[in-house]
Formats: sequence, structure tokens, C-alpha cells
Amino acid sequence: MYGYWGKILRVNLSDGTIKEEKFDENFAKKWLGTRGFGIYYLLKEMDPKVDPFSPENKLIFATGPLTGTSAPTGGRYMVITKSPLTGYIAMANSGGYFGAELKFAGWDAIIVEGKADHPVYIYINEESVEIRDASHLWGKLVSETEEKLKEEVGDKNVQIASIGPAGENKVRFAAVMNNGHRAAGRGGVGAVMGSKNLKAIVVRGHKRVEVADKGKFMEVVREKIEKLKKDPVAGGGLPKYGTAVLVNIINENGLYPTRNFQTGVFKYAYEQSGEAMAAKYLIKNKPCFACPIGCGRVNKLPTLGVTEGPEYESTWALGANLGINDLAAIIEANHFADEYGMDTISLGGTLATAMELYERGLLKQEDIGGDNVPPFRFGNTEVLHYWIHKIATREGFGDVLAEGGYRLAEKFNGLEYFMGVKKQELPAYDPRGAEGHGLGYATNNRGGCHIKQYMISPEILGYPYKMDPHDISDEKVKMVILFQDLTALIDAAGLCVFTTFGLGADDYRDLLNAALGWDFSTEDYLKIGERIWNAERLFNLKAGLDPLKEDTLPKRILEEPMPEGPHKGHVVRLKEMLPRYYKFRGWTEDGRIPEEKLKELGLEEFM
Amino acid sequence: MYGYWGKILRVNLSDGTIKEEKFDENFAKKWLGTRGFGIYYLLKEMDPKVDPFSPENKLIFATGPLTGTSAPTGGRYMVITKSPLTGYIAMANSGGYFGAELKFAGWDAIIVEGKADHPVYIYINEESVEIRDASHLWGKLVSETEEKLKEEVGDKNVQIASIGPAGENKVRFAAVMNNGHRAAGRGGVGAVMGSKNLKAIVVRGHKRVEVADKGKFMEVVREKIEKLKKDPVAGGGLPKYGTAVLVNIINENGLYPTRNFQTGVFKYAYEQSGEAMAAKYLIKNKPCFACPIGCGRVNKLPTLGVTEGPEYESTWALGANLGINDLAAIIEANHFADEYGMDTISLGGTLATAMELYERGLLKQEDIGGDNVPPFRFGNTEVLHYWIHKIATREGFGDVLAEGGYRLAEKFNGLEYFMGVKKQELPAYDPRGAEGHGLGYATNNRGGCHIKQYMISPEILGYPYKMDPHDISDEKVKMVILFQDLTALIDAAGLCVFTTFGLGADDYRDLLNAALGWDFSTEDYLKIGERIWNAERLFNLKAGLDPLKEDTLPKRILEEPMPEGPHKGHVVRLKEMLPRYYKFRGWTEDGRIPEEKLKELGLEEFM
Repeated sequence: MYGYWGKILRVNLSDGTIKEEKFDENFAKKWLGTRGFGIYYLLKEMDPKVDPFSPENKLIFATGPLTGTSAPTGGRYMVITKSPLTGYIAMANSGGYFGAELKFAGWDAIIVEGKADHPVYIYINEESVEIRDASHLWGKLVSETEEKLKEEVGDKNVQIASIGPAGENKVRFAAVMNNGHRAAGRGGVGAVMGSKNLKAIVVRGHKRVEVADKGKFMEVVREKIEKLKKDPVAGGGLPKYGTAVLVNIINENGLYPTRNFQTGVFKYAYEQSGEAMAAKYLIKNKPCFACPIGCGRVNKLPTLGVTEGPEYESTWALGANLGINDLAAIIEANHFADEYGMDTISLGGTLATAMELYERGLLKQEDIGGDNVPPFRFGNTEVLHYWIHKIATREGFGDVLAEGGYRLAEKFNGLEYFMGVKKQELPAYDPRGAEGHGLGYATNNRGGCHIKQYMISPEILGYPYKMDPHDISDEKVKMVILFQDLTALIDAAGLCVFTTFGLGADDYRDLLNAALGWDFSTEDYLKIGERIWNAERLFNLKAGLDPLKEDTLPKRILEEPMPEGPHKGHVVRLKEMLPRYYKFRGWTEDGRIPEEKLKELGLEEFM
Repeated sequence: MYGYWGKILRVNLSDGTIKEEKFDENFAKKWLGTRGFGIYYLLKEMDPKVDPFSPENKLIFATGPLTGTSAPTGGRYMVITKSPLTGYIAMANSGGYFGAELKFAGWDAIIVEGKADHPVYIYINEESVEIRDASHLWGKLVSETEEKLKEEVGDKNVQIASIGPAGENKVRFAAVMNNGHRAAGRGGVGAVMGSKNLKAIVVRGHKRVEVADKGKFMEVVREKIEKLKKDPVAGGGLPKYGTAVLVNIINENGLYPTRNFQTGVFKYAYEQSGEAMAAKYLIKNKPCFACPIGCGRVNKLPTLGVTEGPEYESTWALGANLGINDLAAIIEANHFADEYGMDTISLGGTLATAMELYERGLLKQEDIGGDNVPPFRFGNTEVLHYWIHKIATREGFGDVLAEGGYRLAEKFNGLEYFMGVKKQELPAYDPRGAEGHGLGYATNNRGGCHIKQYMISPEILGYPYKMDPHDISDEKVKMVILFQDLTALIDAAGLCVFTTFGLGADDYRDLLNAALGWDFSTEDYLKIGERIWNAERLFNLKAGLDPLKEDTLPKRILEEPMPEGPHKGHVVRLKEMLPRYYKFRGWTEDGRIPEEKLKELGLEEFM
């Protein structure tokens, strides 16, 4: 078996047991890696109805077969668990160097079970695995945690996945962080880690990931890198301006959500664009492991010194969506979101919810702590300066905000102002300007999320070809499904979805076949993607998902026409798309998976 | 002679000579100290027409007789020179511990002459005085400079007056800094220090300042401290909320200048008030030497960590006057203004000028560096995050801003939007809400300055008694003159003007007589104040002051009625006050000092 060790590390923090488990190539061919492995173990071993913060929830760190290889962007890992934000599946992806190092240590995945009775970290040095005390690290920021752990194990070259204070304090959108500013961000996976008293996983290895045909593999890798380099996004916009290259594009296209999705045009967008960032604060790019794109930003602020990020999503979430145009304040806020370990999208979405509730009079100054705390007005940068810290530490009204935008809006009787799906805050594209993208939000297994079916590619950017954003034909609905399955495949392989700017489904087939020595067709691989998607859906259904109620979008998106810009007058016609989505998925009319579909996908054991 | 050593240190940086000079009690009785000493030496030794940045300009650091004693607030020193901002006299006051230490070292004042051919610092250890190389400190922030110098001389207890990069780069409103965040701020005294290649003065001493009758003096001191403690401002508002206790008071009174004095009411003033600061960021008070008030703030920001300030003036200049309400951003901006060594009032005033020029279309995006720099919009906090640093380093358009608001407005054909007097930016009181205060601005020897005749005391706060802010009777005009002379006295004594919240002219007489063993009447002391004021005026006249043109206020203040609030409809009726001011001063109708007045004040030697 190539590309895999066939080895899973199982650590039970309740009883301190550490086990090595095996899997064979048949298993690999069915689930491929990362999300695939994760959902398999969750479905197999865990009641999807468990409380996400209970010891019964499992927290899985998993690589893909291309993680740790020289495949372009071959450094990804994922964290899979039951989300405390949505109550459904969470599968959060991260880059940097942790995933590759885990592979170098000889492990394909780690399953963390139970709950330690005091703060601990797991130290993996190839075969040697220890659970160590981390009481002295509790409360530390991510950078301090990494620094102290490197010192403690006496090895600067270890890789670390850890949580900051937000994870410790079970902020429902806490992230798992690695390499300082790389996040497995969405769905609160860091809060689950905190609930287990697990501060960090430290890993070091020297093993090399073997591929089936080294010569052939390198040839394929070179060819795919060439394709990426030639692409105007992967080889141009992303390396030059980072993911924030999207700010101007999305704003000019009129779907840059502004002031909690009240409009799709932000007057001052340019000032927070990747272009402005490059001119004002960028000092260099920082690529993840094996990445030829290198979209990561290293910025230097006079106030803060050197930091990394922000990504497009973070820039928007802490910027336009709060009516804030101060890029320096956004970079600072992003820095501290990383240091505390919080998902910037949900953080920003929660603050935007608070701002709209406040400006509409549902949330009052006395509710948030009286006159002496910064009010939630759109454009008030002090909200960034003050509340982010209070959320991470759950001080004062920060304790309410730490529950996320849905619970906040519910508490203050303004659920219609929560701009999210399945209790997770929406990302940086107003779907009234890309209706297929809207269908993606509504049907995404982890709730409000763009990245698991990035329909902005066809609807705005023209990948793999340009589709009218207001076309809601069968072709569009099928494209959403294809993007969901393809993304599941790319994730499971251990690659970054940004490779879709240049690569297509056949390219992933080439890379995987060359590395693994398999002879799968593109369809075979996409079937794995479909299997993963359906298995995750099954998890959600078993957890209690009510599809017809919850596969939906915020009222504003469905009923309030976009007030200005190129998409003026548009809403998302979800009702016209959703039944066909179910149908093309082979699901029932009420969004459930029939027995025959489960059998077709080889999921009958979970019925 | 008590209270003085009678010793002046003269350091010539051009030829490296160091001299000790003496003065006697007659000299002390005529000029008292600080500003008095400073203006005497400037008039005596220097052509007032010299280029402020030439080696011919002199830079004087001077203490008063109560500096270094236990008199309440007895720790002040002043920096006196020809201002590169106004072209007239600069006399900037600072607290902290430097002044007292200079006295402990056995010196009453230092006269710095000439210009070093490379960066130097002066190290004074009582009698031992050295000029030392400071090339390695050039470019360092104030905190780094202080830290490195303490290390270098091997003594943590030295006191340091230094400049930051702003002074080195001759930013026209650069300050001399001590104790990190204490500034001899106004008029660009730090730029003169920079022009001399003088990075710092380091001082250490162990001598005790002797007073005439120790028992009597301590008794008087205790009595005056009691008075201050009982006063609701000096013993209440100031220690509790710092000088920013004024934010709410001045805003509620409708003269809190907002968006470059376009109005006198800032909607979000409360959020930048001393009260809000205390609740959000304050960790403790930090008093200057011998101060029973302790208005200094130590704040902690999550982003920045621990810092000091901001004062009321800085809060306003970097806040409301820029339309900015983010207190955290203001604290940050203040921190870096201190670290670079810049006067926050002129810094904010310059930025406010830029904002109004920009919003009126006189200053265009292409003028300031194109699309990739933050635009000067009111309320844009990124202006603080970005431009402050560029000003200090004179990078890009920062080089133009470093010249101050007057030269900026002149360059872009908008002089009417420069809100200053004699090329110096106005402080935080719109005189349309306090007309006597306006007369003070117009006649102040250092240009737009509140503190040398704080008419807000009678006109708003009721000290020594309440006067109608729109009374422009003879009594009001005479009060302005009294406040100017009294302040000159307090400055010269080495005390802080905040003692006027509780103390009156007789109290200063008591303190001085007890310390010095003199038997002066209150009138005798006020005469010294009057002498100093007139000598400074004489310096300005010799430097080229055209009184009828320059003893004036911005057009807005004279012609545009206040648009809202308690003073709606008011302007400052300067023309109705100024002739009487000249008359009561004993000056000519065109604002010059007649021979007989100079003789009366013993200034005939400077005729």
C-alpha cells in the first residue's frame, strides 16, 4: 500500500490508553482519507446524538494519501468531530506543516476519545506517544503555546496543533491552530478539543511517504504544478495579493456582504483589498507545505509588528460585514483571533449579528454591560479592539457572544438577523448574487460554508466555465452536487481546494493513481466524494437534522431583494432548486437518503 | 540662596565645550525659573530671527525653584527654544521625574548650543558631564532609547529626556520625551533637539534641594496638599478619570471640537471619556514627582499591552477632532505618538486639516500616494494606524504632514481649514463656546495653546469663579491677562498648572516664600509672570511678529457661527476684545510694547 501507513493512533484521554490500529487498502479505496476516515469512524463508533462537549464525542485528526507528498498543496489535514456550533458534522481543513509531519511520524490519523481530568498534550515522536501534563500551558495564546512546547520537548522542528484560550473556554466557534496562523477553523473543533482538556498535539517524524511509481509521480506533479503556475488565479492573483485578491472582484460583482448582508456593495472595499494590503503592509508570502501557490500573507503593522493573514474571508468578516474599512484594525483583529484560536468567519458573523440587533434596538447598551463598553454600531472599530478579547475569555457579554450568532439572535428575539445556515455564520458571498452558491450554503453538511462547494468559481470567476449566477437550471443544481463531491475528493486526498484554479477532476485522478498505484477512473474518485458527502449527511440526519426546516437560508436572502448593484432586485430562489437537488442526489423528497442509495454507496452498515 | 544652586550648565555641541555658569539671587528674583530663565538667555544671547534648525538656535532645559522640592507637583521642567513650527518662542513644560533629577544633580538649567556632527547624548552625573556618541541610538523609539541608555550607563535610576524618530527627522511638532510618556510637547522643541543631533540628556544626582525654613515649608506644603485633596477636580475628577474627565464636561458644554472644529458636539464623546477609559482599560494611576493629584493613566490594551495616557487633549486630537470614536485606537495612536516623540495636539490637528482638505476635494487621493494609502476621511481609524508612522519617518506623504497643518493647508490652497494660531494647531476647546479662551488663543506667545491661560477654568468650570463664556467685558479681558501672568508664574516656579484646581495666587506666594526665604507679595510674584510674558512677546516681535495680522483666530471661529449645541449661533468677537487686551497690557494699539512698559518691567536691556 502506497501513500498510507495503514496506521491509526487511538488515544483515550479518560483512561490514558494509547493504541495503534490498522486499516487495509480496501478501506483506503472506500474512504480515501481525512473527511472520509473521519466520518467513517464517527458513524461506526459514536452516537450522532451525543453532546458535542461530552467525553463521548470523538475528535479525529486525519491526513490524506497525498499529505506529506510533493503533490502540489500536499500538506493538508482535517479535524473531524461533532460540532458544538451546529450540532452536526464538523470537518475543518488546515494547511501549514502539521499534516505532513503527522504523516512523517508514521500515522495516517489520530482518534482522540474521552476527556482528561486536567490539561494535557499529546507528544508523538514517531512510534513513541505520550500524554503529558499541560497545566502550565492553559490560558496561553497560540504563539506562546507553540514556543513553550518546542522548548519543552527540546526540538524546534516539531509541528503543533493546539488551541488558544477560546478553545479552552469552549467558545462555540473556536479553532484548532497550527503554525501560528493556520486554522482548522470552522464548526468549533477547537472547543471540542478544549472540552477534552487537550491543549495540543505535538508531532515529529522522519519517515518518507512512499508513492507507487516515483518517476511517474514526479512527472505528474511537475505537469500539475505547471498548470497551476499558468493559471491567472493560482499562478497570478493568489500569490500576488493572497486570497484577499477577491475583495475587489466580489465587491465589483456586487455580492460582497456589507453590514450583516444588508447590501452587497461596500463603498470602501478597495481599502481592504489584497492590492491595498500588498501596498501598505505586506512583507512576504508564506506558502504551506508543498504549495506552489503561496497565498499566505506575512504582514507588518507598525503597531503590532509582524503577523500573518488575514485571508479574504477574515478581511471581510472583520471588515465590510461590520461596516469597518480600517485594514490595519482588521489585520490586528485577525491576529488576535488566531492567537486566541477562533474562526474569523463565525467571529465576524456573530459581531455583525450583534451590530444589527443593536442598531435595530433589540440589543441594548444595558444588555451588553452598560455605558462603559463599546456599543455594537456598524463601523465602530473599537468593537474589534474590545470584544474579541472578551469573547475569547468569555468575560462579561463576551460570554453570550461566545455562543455564536444564532444563540445570540435567539436570545434577543431577532433570529431573522442571524445570517447563517444550521446555526453557522455565512461566509463572504451574498448568495443573492450567486444563486447556485446559495443552494450550496443551504445543503452544506456543516452549515453556512462556502468552501465545500465553491460555486463562486463557475458563477463569478468562470471555473471550469462561466455560468450565469441567476441560472437555476438543472445544470446549475447538478454543478452544485458535482462541486460538493469533487471537494470531498480533494479534501480526502489531502490537497487544497485552491488547486481547482488550474486543475480539474482528471488531474486529481492522475495524481492519486500515480501516488497510490491504483487504476481508478475519475468517476471512481468522484464516487468516493459522493460517498463521503452522503455519509456526512447521514450523520446529520441521525443527529436530528430536519431537512425541510434546516436546508434553508436566512429570511433576508430568500425574501429581501438585493438593494443595489449588479444583482439589485434578486433573492435566492431556493424553493425552486432544493427539490431538484434532493432528486439529483437520489434522496427522498424530504431530503432523506433512501436505503437503495445507501446500498449503492456501500453505506448499508450505517443504516 | 535657597531653592536654587545658582548653576547653569552650558554645553556647546559644535565645539564640544562644557561650562558651568553662575547666577545670583537678584537674577532669580527677576526671572524665577524655567520660562523666565529661558527667555532671558534667548533674548540676551540669540538673534530671534535665527533659523530654528540652525546651530545658532539655543535649546534650554530649565527647572524652577520648587522643582525637586516636596511642594505639590514640584517636579516640572521646561524646554525653551525658538519654535520651528511657529517661528516664535517655544516653552514646553513636562512632568515626570527628569526635572527633579536635574535639580538633584546640582543644576538649575542646561543651555545647549551649536550642533554635533554626529548623534550624541549628554550624560550628567552631578559634576561630571560628558558628551557621548549616540549613533547606535539614532532611529530608536523613546522606550528603547531609555532602556538602552540605562543599560549603557549602568544605572537604572537615571532620568532621561530624549527624542524619538520624529525629533530626529525634524517633524515640526516633535516633542522632547521623558519617563516614556511625559512630553515637553508643543512647538517642536524635539525637532530642534534633533537638528542639533542631540538624542538624549541623561541625568543622575543625589543632592537635596534646600529650602529656607524646612519646618515652615512642610507646614505650607501640607496645607496646600489638603486644599488640593479637597478640591472636586484636583482631588476628585483628575485622580479618578485623568485629564480625560474633561471629555464629557466639555462635550456637554458644547465646545468639544469635532471634525476639525466643524461643530462643538461629538455624538460618541462618552465612549472616549475618562469614565469609559477607567471602566475599559485603566489599570492604575501614575503620578509625577511630588504630585498629590496623580492624573496620569496607565492603561492596558489587549492588543498593545500596558501603556500610559492618553491625556484629554490627545484623546480629543486623535479622536473627536478626526471624527474617531474608537478609544482603543486612540490609546494606540497616543502610544506611538509618544514612542516617536510627537506632540499629539499638533499631530491630530494636522490630520484633521488633511481630512477637511480631503473631504472638500482640495487634497486628492493622488496627492497622498494613490489608491494604496488610507484616505483622509473623518472617522477613518486607519489614518491613525497608518499615517502616524509615516509622519514620524517622513515617508511618502508623511513628509508633507510632518510640516504641520499650516504648511499643509497652504500647499493645498485651503488655509481657512487650518485651525490654528501662529501656525500652531488649536487644542481641545472650541472658543466659540468660551470667548475669553479665544482671546487667549489669539494672544498666546506660542500660538494656538490653551494651557498658558486656561480660561476654561472661569468660563466653564467656575475657577476661581464662574464667568459667562460670552461675557466679553473688561473684567473678562483682564482675567485673560491675569491667567497668562499667573501661569507664567506657576510655570517659572516649577509647578503644574493643575494646582490651580484648588490653589490661588496667594498659595503660590506662600509656597515660594517659605521655600526661598523671600518676603514677596502676591503682586511681586505676578509681576514676574508679567515680565516673562512681555519678554516672550518681545522675542516674538523681534522675530518678526506682525500683531494685527497674527494675533488672530481661524476664519471659522471668527465668522462661522457654531452650528449646534448650547453655543449655537456664537462666534468669537475678537475684534471687540483685542484692542482692550493691548490696552490693559500697556501695549500700543498695534500690539507692540512701548519703551516705558519695557522699562517698568526691567526689560530695557533688550530694547
